[in-house]
Amino acid sequence: MNVEFMNPFLNNVINVLEVMGHTELQVEKPKIKKGDIAFGDISGLIGMVGPKTKGSFSITFEKQLALRVMRRMLGDNLQEIDDEVSDMVGEITNMVTGGAKKELSAKGYEFDMATPIVVAGKNHTINHKHDGHVIFIPFSSDSGKLYIEICFG
Amino acid sequence: MNVEFMNPFLNNVINVLEVMGHTELQVEKPKIKKGDIAFGDISGLIGMVGPKTKGSFSITFEKQLALRVMRRMLGDNLQEIDDEVSDMVGEITNMVTGGAKKELSAKGYEFDMATPIVVAGKNHTINHKHDGHVIFIPFSSDSGKLYIEICFG
Repeated sequence: MNVEFMNPFLNNVINVLEVMGHTELQVEKPKIKKGDIAFGDISGLIGMVGPKTKGSFSITFEKQLALRVMRRMLGDNLQEIDDEVSDMVGEITNMVTGGAKKELSAKGYEFDMATPIVVAGKNHTINHKHDGHVIFIPFSSDSGKLYIEICFG
Repeated sequence: MNVEFMNPFLNNVINVLEVMGHTELQVEKPKIKKGDIAFGDISGLIGMVGPKTKGSFSITFEKQLALRVMRRMLGDNLQEIDDEVSDMVGEITNMVTGGAKKELSAKGYEFDMATPIVVAGKNHTINHKHDGHVIFIPFSSDSGKLYIEICFG
């Protein structure tokens, strides 16, 4: 994967979580995923298709962080992941990918987004099936971790 | 969603599982998903993008069925879901969607596929975020159930 693709996703995750979710993220070291697995409780996934490229993006939240963002965005004080949290994660997935699409388009990389899918389940794992590298970026916050994975090219 | 989109996916699931997985599926009644949730242990998901349409497809296996198909395809007698099973589910996702794409293209519906993502985790749930209907189709077999979900339009 072209590393130029990484930063627009990284920046948009930080921006969307800050502006919409009132949550400050600290980015940890991005790395190329090699069999190592990160566990999460709710994930938004989306496919991307360009004229010569295809790929996928995912954003995975620990439960406590998803619930905290929900509370900060909508005021809901939930104890468990429900349909509203699922909708929020789908919306964040759309916003991050849409923001990255806009930045990448300005650099000449065009792609279209599919519709997002949200997966919920304690300690699930995500595995992008792509011939190229998968970039894995963990983020920490005051309420737990999230991570993103991107493959494109 | 145009119901014409449904049968190519349905037929290709039956065909791929029979030809590649040596497993006969009985299709149950397709329905429009309305908040009802099906639980699975491993799922393949893929995004689809056409000139005027977008959507997503998922195929979700109960663990016993995924392991049985693995054994019938590759002879591996596994007890737990591992990377090989994940690769197989990704491959089945590609083959089913690729077959459906071919049939739909012949009818004048063009779309491109993103790369698949495989999610593993006991009793996870899938939620397609799409403005239109999500079609839900359960299948039964001698080794457990699988179900597919399609939204496109």
